[in-house]
Amino acid sequence: MIDVQSFKDIRNIPIQKVGVKKVRLPMLIPEKSGGLQTVTAEIALCADLASDARGSHMSRFMEILNKYAKTPITKKTLKSLLEETRNSLKSNSSEIKIKFRYFIEKKAPISGKPGLIDYVCEFKAYLDQSFKTFFFIEIPVITLCPCSKEISEYGAHNQRAVIRINMEYGKDNVLWFEDLTHKIEELASGELYSVLKRSDEKAVTEKAYENPKFVEDIVRDAVLYLNTLDETASFDVECESIESIHNHNAFAYVNPGVKR
Amino acid sequence: MIDVQSFKDIRNIPIQKVGVKKVRLPMLIPEKSGGLQTVTAEIALCADLASDARGSHMSRFMEILNKYAKTPITKKTLKSLLEETRNSLKSNSSEIKIKFRYFIEKKAPISGKPGLIDYVCEFKAYLDQSFKTFFFIEIPVITLCPCSKEISEYGAHNQRAVIRINMEYGKDNVLWFEDLTHKIEELASGELYSVLKRSDEKAVTEKAYENPKFVEDIVRDAVLYLNTLDETASFDVECESIESIHNHNAFAYVNPGVKR
Amino acid sequence: MIDVQSFKDIRNIPIQKVGVKKVRLPMLIPEKSGGLQTVTAEIALCADLASDARGSHMSRFMEILNKYAKTPITKKTLKSLLEETRNSLKSNSSEIKIKFRYFIEKKAPISGKPGLIDYVCEFKAYLDQSFKTFFFIEIPVITLCPCSKEISEYGAHNQRAVIRINMEYGKDNVLWFEDLTHKIEELASGELYSVLKRSDEKAVTEKAYENPKFVEDIVRDAVLYLNTLDETASFDVECESIESIHNHNAFAYVNPGVKR
Amino acid sequence: MIDVQSFKDIRNIPIQKVGVKKVRLPMLIPEKSGGLQTVTAEIALCADLASDARGSHMSRFMEILNKYAKTPITKKTLKSLLEETRNSLKSNSSEIKIKFRYFIEKKAPISGKPGLIDYVCEFKAYLDQSFKTFFFIEIPVITLCPCSKEISEYGAHNQRAVIRINMEYGKDNVLWFEDLTHKIEELASGELYSVLKRSDEKAVTEKAYENPKFVEDIVRDAVLYLNTLDETASFDVECESIESIHNHNAFAYVNPGVKR
Repeated sequence: MIDVQSFKDIRNIPIQKVGVKKVRLPMLIPEKSGGLQTVTAEIALCADLASDARGSHMSRFMEILNKYAKTPITKKTLKSLLEETRNSLKSNSSEIKIKFRYFIEKKAPISGKPGLIDYVCEFKAYLDQSFKTFFFIEIPVITLCPCSKEISEYGAHNQRAVIRINMEYGKDNVLWFEDLTHKIEELASGELYSVLKRSDEKAVTEKAYENPKFVEDIVRDAVLYLNTLDETASFDVECESIESIHNHNAFAYVNPGVKR
Repeated sequence: MIDVQSFKDIRNIPIQKVGVKKVRLPMLIPEKSGGLQTVTAEIALCADLASDARGSHMSRFMEILNKYAKTPITKKTLKSLLEETRNSLKSNSSEIKIKFRYFIEKKAPISGKPGLIDYVCEFKAYLDQSFKTFFFIEIPVITLCPCSKEISEYGAHNQRAVIRINMEYGKDNVLWFEDLTHKIEELASGELYSVLKRSDEKAVTEKAYENPKFVEDIVRDAVLYLNTLDETASFDVECESIESIHNHNAFAYVNPGVKR
Repeated sequence: MIDVQSFKDIRNIPIQKVGVKKVRLPMLIPEKSGGLQTVTAEIALCADLASDARGSHMSRFMEILNKYAKTPITKKTLKSLLEETRNSLKSNSSEIKIKFRYFIEKKAPISGKPGLIDYVCEFKAYLDQSFKTFFFIEIPVITLCPCSKEISEYGAHNQRAVIRINMEYGKDNVLWFEDLTHKIEELASGELYSVLKRSDEKAVTEKAYENPKFVEDIVRDAVLYLNTLDETASFDVECESIESIHNHNAFAYVNPGVKR
Repeated sequence: MIDVQSFKDIRNIPIQKVGVKKVRLPMLIPEKSGGLQTVTAEIALCADLASDARGSHMSRFMEILNKYAKTPITKKTLKSLLEETRNSLKSNSSEIKIKFRYFIEKKAPISGKPGLIDYVCEFKAYLDQSFKTFFFIEIPVITLCPCSKEISEYGAHNQRAVIRINMEYGKDNVLWFEDLTHKIEELASGELYSVLKRSDEKAVTEKAYENPKFVEDIVRDAVLYLNTLDETASFDVECESIESIHNHNAFAYVNPGVKR
């Protein structure tokens, strides 16, 4: 059967990325506890295409992805997946993005009632001469406005906000979502919980009022914290606040550049 | 040219709705001020198909919709659009949904600074032996938790929430979005604004603290208000609150049934 | 500590639904094979609120949901979850919706290459004097336009489409997603696969060309098939086609009413 | 009244972007015809914040945006908007993104029936020592698979796809969406239309069958075309195809780097 993809192409234009997107598959993510969490992932996988090749062989991406569904995703797995992709497609580089909701149990601050909180996470990995891995995480928190608190007789507007962190993994240490979210949540006006009894609600409300934070404060405190981590080669951080007094959001974004 | 759609169908199954969806067109919506607002609408238009007809003629829906793009949308327009659809498709019934963001200017409570707030709105109309019109509107507000206020030494969690109203138009009176949103916003803990200077922010913060409301309170107060309107034949109302202390939402929904 | 929710309410308005929405939790769904599939679910859980009660106790919904996370979801589980909700909230009725992507392995038609296809599914259950269960499923397929094929010298426009089925469960039999999707996919112009080698792509392309179907054809054939199922008390079905020649979609919808 | 935002900050971390997001406003976009199109825009506006300032003054962004609502958006407008932002916030840089659906009338190829097609567009502008403007556009088209056509006895799978172009404006010439979309659509297997009568559908179907294109082909042809434009300083291009035979998408992406 004719293989149109293998025809020669004379336009002389190399293509950096050819592949599949919006692929959904169950994946296994290692938990800090040693267990494995089954997530529903949305995946993009691609490789470069040489300037003289007409097309890529899309089915190979899907064969590889189906093979890795339900395989625990680690740096090692991602590397072998990307090597297999590159070899299979006869490419020079390959890239993967795996996005999913990850669940972490949190206990209410007073009652200790347990409940799961979900975090949007994404692993990214890129392979050419070198192999680089990245992740993205979105951590929901409370922001309570310092200005509103200061100028008002009582009360202060507060709201749900999300802290988004992109990070390139540095040294070989593992950075557990469980540890990172714990540390980052402490930087906000308050933390979110799944189950809050009245005693908890009182504690969360008062703590937020005692810890007013602008989105600017949160990204700065996040930079100070993330700079201390050995695991990061580079990072950026954003905080977006679903303003309770507006129908739009406020945000702050820092990319601190070369690590200090 | 053969018209496959006109073939006879022997499966003997009438189809209630055949048509087009996710059509986007600019539409003109009359404002209370007498002006016309150009909106970007997402539209669904359909008609029923008799049990013995193989298919509908989809292009006719689009010809009709393109003709009405930039026509001011009133009950009269909707009726003639639906009549034209029904006639063109040789159907017994036709139905349209037109969803868009509508902008209303609001002035900040102290400084008077003006700014536009956007509301998700939808007109629906249905024509068979009778002609019925409906609308949906989503009104963003502040909710401040009465429980949190009561049990806490200071502060109270608050957040953006949306009030959703579905309504069948009753008598021939017009119910202006400008009037409805104004009245409904007063029922919440506080209103949203586009521009808030510090003096405004103080006022909005304190007003919300003085007016704690559960989602349950808001839907009940909305029912009491909507029951007073001559323009409504029937309605339902929901309030969904983007809880600042949780990563999920709280909601309440009432369909009061036959109007009291 | 004061319990504001327990205050008396004098507005005399019962509320049909009070609860939580956009809760995300891992859930376990039984597979036909006998195994259990871990899914990432988006959940709404609510109960009614008596006219004289000020507010619901939202934390109880979350305690119940967290308890059922990772419990296999069956009719029996749903019933006990809803009974627990109703008892805990001292309500007369309770309702749950659980939405998730469910994966089913399909083999390519010629090469037999396996791969997972994801389906958007939703379980719904309602408890008052009686207990009713429902599900929704969205099944992606190919539609190839009969008109386009008939009038063109060669080729025919085709595209991805989705068939959406809402169904109330009838008798006690189980209706497996694995069986339903298999039967429904056969009604379309063609089926979707995860991995298709060239021999498979040829087979899928030719089969679609041999089986032109309007969205009207698909909903009618689905009605004929679903009417034969003992497991259904009632159902409706829609097919929406992402038209390749338009920037809008075509759709057909049938609610055949009382079962024939 | 105390101005908390103006407090000194000792963390010594400059913030690249502080501002507002998901602001929705009507905006006016100049059309090639000389007219103005009212669009519903989603806007982000931000400025940098010096390392020693505690917070930004968010209301000023909204005052500026509300002032420019319904102002025709040109390079000149964007520049004065960004200058006003920078001055008002005492910043060194400012940035805006304006996303909207833009409508262009297209006539069916045979019948000449007119209808509007919507394109997702985004203007971006950045001001520091220099002033740079960018745009993004998403152009929906048909792709018909060359492999499927070649290996099948009859038919070929085809589907809706989108071509996404990011471009930095170069010389002072204006690049009209009307002209760009026209040229880019010619590169695909076929074009989308709002209204297609049977004679048109035949023409579109046959043309697509005569012009099979991989996503790889489309991005390469787009690079060849975009390289000829004086108006572009740099660009990248992606084509993503909603594969009719899969439940995932195929894509190709090229960033040709320095202009050749």
